[in-house]
Amino acid sequence: MMNNPTFDLSTIGEGQIRLTVNRGERLMSARSVRMNPACSEANVAGLLSQLGRKTQWSSSLPDGDLGEYVLSEYRSVGVNMDAMIRKPGGRMALYFMEPGEAPMPANVIYDREWTPFRATGIEEYDWDTIFDTKILFLTGITAALTDTTAQVVRYAADEAHKRGIDIVLDVNFRSKLWDGEHARRVLEPIAKMAKVLFCSISDARKVFGIEGSAPDVCKAIRARFGNEYVVSTNHLDGPYLCGPNGFTSYVTTPVPIVDRPGAGDSFVSATIHGYLSGDIKQGVAWGQKASEFAITHMGDLTRIRPDELHIPLGSDINR
Amino acid sequence: MMNNPTFDLSTIGEGQIRLTVNRGERLMSARSVRMNPACSEANVAGLLSQLGRKTQWSSSLPDGDLGEYVLSEYRSVGVNMDAMIRKPGGRMALYFMEPGEAPMPANVIYDREWTPFRATGIEEYDWDTIFDTKILFLTGITAALTDTTAQVVRYAADEAHKRGIDIVLDVNFRSKLWDGEHARRVLEPIAKMAKVLFCSISDARKVFGIEGSAPDVCKAIRARFGNEYVVSTNHLDGPYLCGPNGFTSYVTTPVPIVDRPGAGDSFVSATIHGYLSGDIKQGVAWGQKASEFAITHMGDLTRIRPDELHIPLGSDINR
Amino acid sequence: MMNNPTFDLSTIGEGQIRLTVNRGERLMSARSVRMNPACSEANVAGLLSQLGRKTQWSSSLPDGDLGEYVLSEYRSVGVNMDAMIRKPGGRMALYFMEPGEAPMPANVIYDREWTPFRATGIEEYDWDTIFDTKILFLTGITAALTDTTAQVVRYAADEAHKRGIDIVLDVNFRSKLWDGEHARRVLEPIAKMAKVLFCSISDARKVFGIEGSAPDVCKAIRARFGNEYVVSTNHLDGPYLCGPNGFTSYVTTPVPIVDRPGAGDSFVSATIHGYLSGDIKQGVAWGQKASEFAITHMGDLTRIRPDELHIPLGSDINR
Amino acid sequence: MMNNPTFDLSTIGEGQIRLTVNRGERLMSARSVRMNPACSEANVAGLLSQLGRKTQWSSSLPDGDLGEYVLSEYRSVGVNMDAMIRKPGGRMALYFMEPGEAPMPANVIYDREWTPFRATGIEEYDWDTIFDTKILFLTGITAALTDTTAQVVRYAADEAHKRGIDIVLDVNFRSKLWDGEHARRVLEPIAKMAKVLFCSISDARKVFGIEGSAPDVCKAIRARFGNEYVVSTNHLDGPYLCGPNGFTSYVTTPVPIVDRPGAGDSFVSATIHGYLSGDIKQGVAWGQKASEFAITHMGDLTRIRPDELHIPLGSDINR
Amino acid sequence: MMNNPTFDLSTIGEGQIRLTVNRGERLMSARSVRMNPACSEANVAGLLSQLGRKTQWSSSLPDGDLGEYVLSEYRSVGVNMDAMIRKPGGRMALYFMEPGEAPMPANVIYDREWTPFRATGIEEYDWDTIFDTKILFLTGITAALTDTTAQVVRYAADEAHKRGIDIVLDVNFRSKLWDGEHARRVLEPIAKMAKVLFCSISDARKVFGIEGSAPDVCKAIRARFGNEYVVSTNHLDGPYLCGPNGFTSYVTTPVPIVDRPGAGDSFVSATIHGYLSGDIKQGVAWGQKASEFAITHMGDLTRIRPDELHIPLGSDINR
Amino acid sequence: MMNNPTFDLSTIGEGQIRLTVNRGERLMSARSVRMNPACSEANVAGLLSQLGRKTQWSSSLPDGDLGEYVLSEYRSVGVNMDAMIRKPGGRMALYFMEPGEAPMPANVIYDREWTPFRATGIEEYDWDTIFDTKILFLTGITAALTDTTAQVVRYAADEAHKRGIDIVLDVNFRSKLWDGEHARRVLEPIAKMAKVLFCSISDARKVFGIEGSAPDVCKAIRARFGNEYVVSTNHLDGPYLCGPNGFTSYVTTPVPIVDRPGAGDSFVSATIHGYLSGDIKQGVAWGQKASEFAITHMGDLTRIRPDELHIPLGSDINR
Repeated sequence: MMNNPTFDLSTIGEGQIRLTVNRGERLMSARSVRMNPACSEANVAGLLSQLGRKTQWSSSLPDGDLGEYVLSEYRSVGVNMDAMIRKPGGRMALYFMEPGEAPMPANVIYDREWTPFRATGIEEYDWDTIFDTKILFLTGITAALTDTTAQVVRYAADEAHKRGIDIVLDVNFRSKLWDGEHARRVLEPIAKMAKVLFCSISDARKVFGIEGSAPDVCKAIRARFGNEYVVSTNHLDGPYLCGPNGFTSYVTTPVPIVDRPGAGDSFVSATIHGYLSGDIKQGVAWGQKASEFAITHMGDLTRIRPDELHIPLGSDINR
Repeated sequence: MMNNPTFDLSTIGEGQIRLTVNRGERLMSARSVRMNPACSEANVAGLLSQLGRKTQWSSSLPDGDLGEYVLSEYRSVGVNMDAMIRKPGGRMALYFMEPGEAPMPANVIYDREWTPFRATGIEEYDWDTIFDTKILFLTGITAALTDTTAQVVRYAADEAHKRGIDIVLDVNFRSKLWDGEHARRVLEPIAKMAKVLFCSISDARKVFGIEGSAPDVCKAIRARFGNEYVVSTNHLDGPYLCGPNGFTSYVTTPVPIVDRPGAGDSFVSATIHGYLSGDIKQGVAWGQKASEFAITHMGDLTRIRPDELHIPLGSDINR
Repeated sequence: MMNNPTFDLSTIGEGQIRLTVNRGERLMSARSVRMNPACSEANVAGLLSQLGRKTQWSSSLPDGDLGEYVLSEYRSVGVNMDAMIRKPGGRMALYFMEPGEAPMPANVIYDREWTPFRATGIEEYDWDTIFDTKILFLTGITAALTDTTAQVVRYAADEAHKRGIDIVLDVNFRSKLWDGEHARRVLEPIAKMAKVLFCSISDARKVFGIEGSAPDVCKAIRARFGNEYVVSTNHLDGPYLCGPNGFTSYVTTPVPIVDRPGAGDSFVSATIHGYLSGDIKQGVAWGQKASEFAITHMGDLTRIRPDELHIPLGSDINR
Repeated sequence: MMNNPTFDLSTIGEGQIRLTVNRGERLMSARSVRMNPACSEANVAGLLSQLGRKTQWSSSLPDGDLGEYVLSEYRSVGVNMDAMIRKPGGRMALYFMEPGEAPMPANVIYDREWTPFRATGIEEYDWDTIFDTKILFLTGITAALTDTTAQVVRYAADEAHKRGIDIVLDVNFRSKLWDGEHARRVLEPIAKMAKVLFCSISDARKVFGIEGSAPDVCKAIRARFGNEYVVSTNHLDGPYLCGPNGFTSYVTTPVPIVDRPGAGDSFVSATIHGYLSGDIKQGVAWGQKASEFAITHMGDLTRIRPDELHIPLGSDINR
Repeated sequence: MMNNPTFDLSTIGEGQIRLTVNRGERLMSARSVRMNPACSEANVAGLLSQLGRKTQWSSSLPDGDLGEYVLSEYRSVGVNMDAMIRKPGGRMALYFMEPGEAPMPANVIYDREWTPFRATGIEEYDWDTIFDTKILFLTGITAALTDTTAQVVRYAADEAHKRGIDIVLDVNFRSKLWDGEHARRVLEPIAKMAKVLFCSISDARKVFGIEGSAPDVCKAIRARFGNEYVVSTNHLDGPYLCGPNGFTSYVTTPVPIVDRPGAGDSFVSATIHGYLSGDIKQGVAWGQKASEFAITHMGDLTRIRPDELHIPLGSDINR
Repeated sequence: MMNNPTFDLSTIGEGQIRLTVNRGERLMSARSVRMNPACSEANVAGLLSQLGRKTQWSSSLPDGDLGEYVLSEYRSVGVNMDAMIRKPGGRMALYFMEPGEAPMPANVIYDREWTPFRATGIEEYDWDTIFDTKILFLTGITAALTDTTAQVVRYAADEAHKRGIDIVLDVNFRSKLWDGEHARRVLEPIAKMAKVLFCSISDARKVFGIEGSAPDVCKAIRARFGNEYVVSTNHLDGPYLCGPNGFTSYVTTPVPIVDRPGAGDSFVSATIHGYLSGDIKQGVAWGQKASEFAITHMGDLTRIRPDELHIPLGSDINR
């Protein structure tokens, strides 16, 4: 790791736009939809930034208003974009969402193919800027898009590993993007380099074929990949933290849902905030609170005041 | 019944417009209201149409935008309107609704008198088109409006019976429109001709004076009118199905309410879909799901995708 | 006239509710409409009240939220309602409006028949409270509704005349409510008692058969009925004032339209404000400004600050 | 007390404006906010007025639209404002509110300093009009603002006491405005003059240092100040009524929250309605219902129809 | 032509969804957008249907809510969809639009590539249903999308020609979709078969290289392709009609713009209505009015009442 | 000037929040208001940032959501805030605005006193960061607030002058904040140090007593203060540029107004962009276009795409 890197966390992922049907309406007769920027990796950076951390996000987005639309959201909370790639033309990744009041399920229509990000190769990224960081944050979503993005993720991991930067990987398996075996082949080498690995109990089974009780699965992941910490969510059970000082189980309280997307990213982000503060155990508890708060307001990026979590600001942390 | 009738279901009923106060506001200080078309019978036809059935609706509505407003809603889901009557001038049936967040009750202000539908007589309807159907669907609401509409409903039933068309009657007793004794006098002869009779446990008592345990009431209705099937809802208990193969009781799960009107019509509609598919037992279960979904979105007409009920499409059914 | 009457102006007219399609939408596909209280006579009282005058309005409205809805609008600007009649049940007068962006014309759908006001007779009004006023304001609209309301208006005029109260009549001919000959028969005797008569050039022709150049018509009206003042609007020409000190012609400046209804009432109201201040000539100029401002915001009642007209407040006027 | 006073209740308090973030949004990224008038004392008067009582409210507000904005809300439900003071210039008391969907807490940002009300002294009020009442209603909020407002409240109480007017005091302790000891010093003499005292169990402890079980605290307050009635709320327990005929405990049912502010004022108001009807015991039950309904719709002033509480109208009460 | 064909007009074209930024907002910071169905060819059919004509539209759209969304719009005005093709999966054609208040230009971001319609071949259409019509309406837009759609359009024209169906072609050149030479190659043979040809003065130059004064261009088109009628718009000049009875020039009045898309389609549609009525000269005048009205309300499909054009209804026309 | 300063422009000014009544509504009856961040100086920085320049803004704002609200707006377009001061507690500067559809005037209610910015002194600013810039931008607004802010502005100017940084001063006289003589005393020394001086013809008269024809005034300003460039707006005439290469007069085209605030700041900002590009003459033309576009969308900060002005991006400029 560089001495005194500029950023606490760097990440790479595709910016998207979400179009959401209003409460009580159906997509097939809607006359207006809410619109908001989205990006799992940028959500993690954006929440950390609000908690006082220095973060940056690299993506590859089409020129023009739709790209600018996504950037300005994350820029507004202070995420650095010096390593952002803009492409002339090309379409924006989109998704439509009908939230679905219970018991009606949410309906998501993805429309994220044929975008520039999918074809942006290793040689186009500004790696020196990206690697000027304590943590490199990667997800299975980006690795899943195309062979090209899988290569980008792998290169980032290999090179960060070489440079002594902490790798944090969120497996985040999406069955609509790839299958478990494919995911395993791509993610396994990266998982082995990860200092902190986020892998849900169900993803552990689907991607890595690890079965058993939830605590056992969490421990088995750590045993298999040798991570310092493994954090596993498990729907309404858990989450679990497994690290050098043993295993911790947390209790999740279900909360009413206003807007679901982004809750998982908030969990990851606040957990990383704890890790950066030297207390990931506390971080997971912050993560629970952050994800609870995330679903009470609209948008993929969680908007939060640091004092809402009763957590120390990045700049206040004694190290 | 005609050979190969064009429609699966024909129905007659008055189109209305609902004006609804927004959540968290009171009618007495509202500045805008939601507006939507409404009609119990057209709701039944409209949901069936979305499920792949051929349906038609006949009504008598004033010329001009308000009438067109109601028609275009049901036309948008494919309900045929070749037998629609339009009148020069005349007012539109309306109702205001303040939904009332619990524990505040909903408040409904009806304003549906003096409309053309109430005075449209037997001789004005296009019966040949109406009777080009497998099922004729009638309700107590239409029968309750005026003597003229009662005659129309009775004529439709008698004539359909003569032509061998299946009659489905939904008693749907509305105490604000008539009293139980009046309803009994008008509906009893029609009930006796009905192949499928929808009559809630409470309507059975109020209209037909049938008392007893809910299952007994359902069976007693069938015994009294000789229907092939009787379907009885019972608030949060039931519903019950009583037919040639015996009695079935279902379990209702309460769901949060976004917008109540139309749920009962959706239940009836999906049940009829089952009946048309040769499996009314499955139909009642579909009806439960359809009515649960109905209250999760606004509008009297339920908007649904066929696959949301995991039900076979009309055109996919092997018979 | 009583010594020191409580009110500057009393009036009688039917409260209504307007439902207006939003800009850029058409009624036949609207999903929400703006809602606002309406009443020509109450608009006049309500604007005067905002200008510092004491006013009251008497009407006959159904009990319940819709009646309360209309009352609270005019009560909010200080119109007194001690002589208000409420009826158990009965429907509310309504009208739908599609404003129509130019060159599309506005489309209005009236739905104001069968209301309690139409059947409320002379004996039901609280005349002592109504006549505790300097001015009694009457309009042709109320006189046009039914024979009963025509009798109420005539009784009010006769009795006010007897008591020495100034009568102000706004002819306000509505061809959808009655024809010119009928209007003449009812309004002529009242016009003769009016101290101030508002009659547009076109109404003078249609109702009273007075033809000629606009200024001549204005003068002819005064000659015929012997009013102290006659005020005549003439579309984009005029208005004209004809009084004991001669004839005055004003210049109208067209302004962009946000919401049209109520502009005429605002003109009348501010003109009366001038009359009450002893300077009706200034009043007509205030009326022009009030009606210009009226069409810049939504709602039938014009909301205005006294200083917006640069006019002396009622309480500030030296007399 | 005067013979036949004009008003059932008079009160004094500062009008405010609330700016509220929409559901599912966060203040830090909101683009529009709901706006509504607010004033604890006017809320009490305004609900009573809707229940058929004659009420008046005195305040001191800046001239211009923002002052008028607040007045027109309470005027719309019939609160008399003959004793209202308007000041040239000066700022309006405001507060921003982010409601916070559970489990996120509500966030309130007060901005109510440097307003004219805080500096309006005893000599500026129109006491003769204010004291033309059966009940004078005072709260700890007004007493807490400044020394000047504390003097106004004290003077009002002393003088009402002298004139034989019933004093009703709502302690309503706000720790952000003053501390318990300060509140005790100011409120104790007033509490001793109060016929009816509203003091929550927790305020009793914080302000008057009264500890013990909830029922004991309620009784101890009455013993200490010698009020005819003491009414104590206790979060989700209670409320309690303690009077000459003994002690009554009520059961509170929690209801879903749409908009919280104003619920306490509605409780107080409907309880006073009972007191005025000669049955405060029933009044507390009405108060529970009023406060339950209050939180189902937006705005600080609760909008209610008299029949919604199944309570006798003011004008129907036999006295 | 068949004897008594079912439809007055059949057409083929791709359904799209438009997402529009609200007035006064910019795309790069919008939080909600208006959404509406769009399709040039369906707009023509939809307006004709509202004018009383029988029309049908064939397209190829993905299964699911977004496809259903577009269909229900045109179905709601009565366009028949018996020849509609639905595809499993596939993306929907979209476009974003920032309307741009003058002098800011409108900004449109197309996102309509990779859709099923582009790959749907001749063999997939239900030609017998499509050709059961008096008029086949084709546009250059559909021909421009891909080689496959160009073949479909050509096949449709050839086959309609063979069957004696009137072909109406709207050149509608879109330089973002293809270049003039390419358009000429594809459209020229179709233009030669067209009974009525819509070709703007500017398209005539760009596609067919026809230069000269506007009237001369219009005549030259007719001379070159031998159409019965040529209709040419020319921005704010014209339009021009050239037919067997000579040349007619019309005067265009500019009107304020609320929402631009769809105006040209409305012009074409109402002109065809005239042609079907045997009076295309009147039709062009109707077309002018229809397009003026089109831009006063939102949505690509113009919503119109037949009487708004003061035009004979389809059913009223003597033939 | 430093070699290679980090920023193109630094500025100091108070962040505010604007609350705006919706079109067609009046403040006194509004139920919701639009909310947006505002700050004249930050608007200038924010537009420059969108044009590709590096800018920073320093202010002194209360901790909490309202402060964060303002910062995130300007941060979203890339304005650097490393020199931002946050204060515990304190109120936010606000203003209410009723836009007023013509001919109704706009009504603004300022509420910006008693804020932390007014009391933030020289010693609290991070001058080294602020002075790491090519241009220091100052306005008369900040100088006008209090003696403390006047001292801050003067100190900034003196020190920048010493360090060789270009000073740009926008006189921006606000008569509600101070009088002309006071403004002259404070601004004159700063004007003399300004490289570029923005001073409208009317401000020149009110503040500096310079009379004469518009072009003469512009030249006289330059003669008096010795600036390199003077830029003078003059309502709908002008603007004028006066520099070493002589005098240039521009022609202003009036455009329809959607939202007025911020137009002047956009003019200044794009003019400075030209100055930074070495072509202020072009800059004034860009300024005209930027201010025209500014009033077509809502918000004080103009949102713009660089290519909308057809202007070279900051990074594209050859120097």
